[in-house]
Amino acid sequence: MEQKLKKIVIAGVGLIGGSFALAIRSAGIKAELVGIGRDPESMQQALALGIIDRVAVEAEDAYGGADLILIAAPVAQTGGILRQILPFLGRDTVVTDVGSTKADAVAAARQVLGDRIAQFVPAHPIAGRELNGPSAAISDLYVGKKLVITALPENQDASVRLVESLWKMCGAQIHFLSPEVHDAVFASVSHLPHLLAYALVHEVSQRENADTLFQYAASGFRDFTRIAGSSPEMWRDIAMANRDALLHELDAYIAKIVSMRSDLESGDAESLYKTFSTAQYARQRWVDAIEAAEKDGCAAALTKKNIF
Amino acid sequence: MEQKLKKIVIAGVGLIGGSFALAIRSAGIKAELVGIGRDPESMQQALALGIIDRVAVEAEDAYGGADLILIAAPVAQTGGILRQILPFLGRDTVVTDVGSTKADAVAAARQVLGDRIAQFVPAHPIAGRELNGPSAAISDLYVGKKLVITALPENQDASVRLVESLWKMCGAQIHFLSPEVHDAVFASVSHLPHLLAYALVHEVSQRENADTLFQYAASGFRDFTRIAGSSPEMWRDIAMANRDALLHELDAYIAKIVSMRSDLESGDAESLYKTFSTAQYARQRWVDAIEAAEKDGCAAALTKKNIF
Repeated sequence: MEQKLKKIVIAGVGLIGGSFALAIRSAGIKAELVGIGRDPESMQQALALGIIDRVAVEAEDAYGGADLILIAAPVAQTGGILRQILPFLGRDTVVTDVGSTKADAVAAARQVLGDRIAQFVPAHPIAGRELNGPSAAISDLYVGKKLVITALPENQDASVRLVESLWKMCGAQIHFLSPEVHDAVFASVSHLPHLLAYALVHEVSQRENADTLFQYAASGFRDFTRIAGSSPEMWRDIAMANRDALLHELDAYIAKIVSMRSDLESGDAESLYKTFSTAQYARQRWVDAIEAAEKDGCAAALTKKNIF
Repeated sequence: MEQKLKKIVIAGVGLIGGSFALAIRSAGIKAELVGIGRDPESMQQALALGIIDRVAVEAEDAYGGADLILIAAPVAQTGGILRQILPFLGRDTVVTDVGSTKADAVAAARQVLGDRIAQFVPAHPIAGRELNGPSAAISDLYVGKKLVITALPENQDASVRLVESLWKMCGAQIHFLSPEVHDAVFASVSHLPHLLAYALVHEVSQRENADTLFQYAASGFRDFTRIAGSSPEMWRDIAMANRDALLHELDAYIAKIVSMRSDLESGDAESLYKTFSTAQYARQRWVDAIEAAEKDGCAAALTKKNIF
């Protein structure tokens, strides 16, 4: 099916959109790859790097006649981009996205697309790098990584299968969740830790003796706060977009540390030990499992590459 | 001064004590290096690896006639080891330690050593690896790393200078703090993050859908929780030993995330953004500074190696 594609549009050719373009091209996709984005310099860079075949400036030129449109811009822009797409949205065009929150993307899409919502297949690749922009794009960013599709009841099977097959070509492992479950899961294992890391660095940075504190912060602090190096705009948008789930996770976490505080204050070393050792054991099991899965994923990806 | 040393005792020859022994030997120290420890197998391993010259089993054999004794065991054992040392403590012997908390080590030393407290010079190397035991010991563990001496008013200058010069030989940068300031600083930038990381993994591991949550946890979660892979015994002891400072930090942190929760609930995206961006900027400045310092440290260490 994917070999019949003639035109694929990447709306936002940064790390995520650019890596998708490089990956499907290197997997054998012959379609014209058209880029469109807010920053002309960035688009010219993507063109010069051979990530896309051409840059479109006007919405009609970009989106008209497209087989697939990938929206790879910060989540808060999804609605606006869909509004630009709508007048030129072909009857058989499939639109997908890469946003870190899904319920809000679906709500925006329902509002903008109305009875054409069936053409929007929401997705989220669980991959990234500490670098941004087209120059950070690499063809193997998604190899062995998860890609979550939060398909809608209105989606046609063929549309979902198209999105699935393109991401499989990138080497990703496809998972299906509802938008609500997706958002609850990522509130817990991604959005909450980001907020907690920002909170710690902010707390330290506001102290009178901040310079002394930072002077003695070592590798543990550095790892713990690595995600506080992420884009504040992006994470503000994610936090606001996934507010209810994130509030729920924050409340559970606050209750947990208040309970550990009480163990510490009352000198209940045994209870603290139990919490620490349960956590350490659970983390070790998880690390063992992902390391095993990564090995399998790499093996599968290598086999796959030999096919093309 | 350090070239006159004839006998140096390492009480606890694991990663920290073993790396100290390897580093001072490779820096040219000729003294006999004697190891003593609770685990006979581990001591034999340290001997076989050439980290120490011999293993002592009896306290008199180990500590008698020592010029320097390094206590490199978990902090809760400091008092017990000092009790074993006391009957054989020479008049000119200097005792030092490597504990992550200092006020408790000083209190234990004052209680055990009484009017011989001047011979105890408390110290804390800010270095580690994810591995433990003698086989993890490496001679350059401390190169460019900080070594904090929390000298006591009773310490003689010569004793402090001896500890300082040995750690300088290991490539460490020497810093001086009071035990109380040391403990407050590390409660903030080390002990609190450990507790927070354990708390997050524990919270996730206790959920009904823990398997699903761990399945979607990615590299951000992994970095954030890396320190929750640390020894639960060690961190229980550190938390209990530094309880007051840690409670203080926990309260400040809880207040911070409660305030961020309130921004999130009321939809104050601007305030959240301000917190995130202040934190991101502060962290970037800090990372830039340590990367510059690491370069300088390595350059200095390389120069130093050429001297020997």
